[in-house]
Amino acid sequence: MQVGIIGLGKMGFNLALNLKRNNYQVVAQDVNTDFVSKIGQEGIETAYTVEELCQKLTERRVIWLMVPAGEIVDGVITSLLPYLSKNDIIIDGGNSNYNDSKRRYVQLKEHGIDFLDCGTSGGTSGALNGACTMIGGDAAVFDYVANVFKDISVENGFLYTGAAGSGHFTKMVHNGIEYGMMQSIAEGFEVFEHSEFDIDFQKTAKLFNHGSVVRSWLMELTENAFSKDARLDGIKGIMHSSGEGKWTLETALDLGVPTPVIALSIMMRYRSQMSDTFSGKVVAALRNEFGGHAVEKSE
Amino acid sequence: MQVGIIGLGKMGFNLALNLKRNNYQVVAQDVNTDFVSKIGQEGIETAYTVEELCQKLTERRVIWLMVPAGEIVDGVITSLLPYLSKNDIIIDGGNSNYNDSKRRYVQLKEHGIDFLDCGTSGGTSGALNGACTMIGGDAAVFDYVANVFKDISVENGFLYTGAAGSGHFTKMVHNGIEYGMMQSIAEGFEVFEHSEFDIDFQKTAKLFNHGSVVRSWLMELTENAFSKDARLDGIKGIMHSSGEGKWTLETALDLGVPTPVIALSIMMRYRSQMSDTFSGKVVAALRNEFGGHAVEKSE
Repeated sequence: MQVGIIGLGKMGFNLALNLKRNNYQVVAQDVNTDFVSKIGQEGIETAYTVEELCQKLTERRVIWLMVPAGEIVDGVITSLLPYLSKNDIIIDGGNSNYNDSKRRYVQLKEHGIDFLDCGTSGGTSGALNGACTMIGGDAAVFDYVANVFKDISVENGFLYTGAAGSGHFTKMVHNGIEYGMMQSIAEGFEVFEHSEFDIDFQKTAKLFNHGSVVRSWLMELTENAFSKDARLDGIKGIMHSSGEGKWTLETALDLGVPTPVIALSIMMRYRSQMSDTFSGKVVAALRNEFGGHAVEKSE
Repeated sequence: MQVGIIGLGKMGFNLALNLKRNNYQVVAQDVNTDFVSKIGQEGIETAYTVEELCQKLTERRVIWLMVPAGEIVDGVITSLLPYLSKNDIIIDGGNSNYNDSKRRYVQLKEHGIDFLDCGTSGGTSGALNGACTMIGGDAAVFDYVANVFKDISVENGFLYTGAAGSGHFTKMVHNGIEYGMMQSIAEGFEVFEHSEFDIDFQKTAKLFNHGSVVRSWLMELTENAFSKDARLDGIKGIMHSSGEGKWTLETALDLGVPTPVIALSIMMRYRSQMSDTFSGKVVAALRNEFGGHAVEKSE
């Protein structure tokens, strides 16, 4: 079976290799021609334009998008449309907002193009060696390409989640859970860091992965991180984010559902990106106003 | 080697079996004589009083306490003292507050008795088949009984954490992390529950355990729970707690360390124990006062 891949960043590149290892005939394209050349050296057929990509794929085309969420996805889809045939299948394997995926499903349906939204977890190593995929869209379309998901995923690591948008929705909530789990682990080690005891972070994380209740892949990654840098002296505690955590919180707000831990996980990321806060100035000023408490002057 | 066990609840009972399987000569005691009879049927030597227990153990005695945290631990220690000899070792394997363990270490040292505080994770199945143990106290005392911890734990599942109190401190923070992870998983499924999609909770939890970033033992337990009761219709969402989460938060407050996710996890447990809140009445009343917004009358 042929599979076209558009987007050869860390995830798409590894996914292409994963598909090739599973004996798919991969045709790979990216706007960055360096990426295209690089994957060509891996023995994968390349295309330098979406037109070329579509020409190299026979119908019913299966085209996997692994590009940044947002307008880029719409741009790629628009650029593809002139070269697609009825019932060709576009899979969006990126971290798109599920509302965008619902919209794209409808828009593509009007053009006779089938669309699946696929949440992909497991990081870059998962993309290469076995991912975790959750797929929304028409069941019959999913069935047509079910083996693709099965083959690129770990055993039992793929699931048809239902209606269009549900794949990215499931992935979004997965990432919301991930935010909370990461923040909770991080807060625990913050307490260790400030404690009266001389806690060995790497040994403790390793211990926690052997028989404890909190054993998890994230705790294994924690152990890995401490094994490379015992007190993480080499990095700053600035936590960036891509979007799924925020979307999970936005969805919870729209649904009227309390998710305080996920909410605070996101807020702590934002806080970490500020060296000082205006809210801090306001509270310091107020304490000074009503109680004469000292403030620290800015330099 | 002989090991005395005091406290034959779910954890202590299983630990006794675990020790016996590892060829320790176990002598088991509990104030509940039914528990003592029951473990006797497992071929384990029993004692009906702490005096009898101490008489059946040769010096240097090793006595493992697996009783509820708090005054009960002090009570058991006080009752043991008349029957102990210098350098006998008391191991507190329960969920004691690390400040209590520091105090008990000092008090017992004055009596010439050695004391180790051992945080034990992994639940009742871990106690039976292989736990995760973290041990504080004198290094030389730990060394004397290191094999006990090694044998009852999973491979790599025991760690000498340092000074007296550090074992229970490490376990306390472990449980704080656990609170946040559990709440985060729970909030994700709350969003699923209220979503527009027909999410199969059990299949989704299972998927998340196969290649995803949030794969973890807690997610496996989530999967187990949904496999028994697809929408958890059979239980109420009332979340009790024992103490370690609260202590983690109290410690964070004393240290001046921000742990919002652990804090909110605990608050959500307290909230779940209330069918209505007084703070809710206050906010509803205020909205009515300033804006004439409707309130719901109590019955």
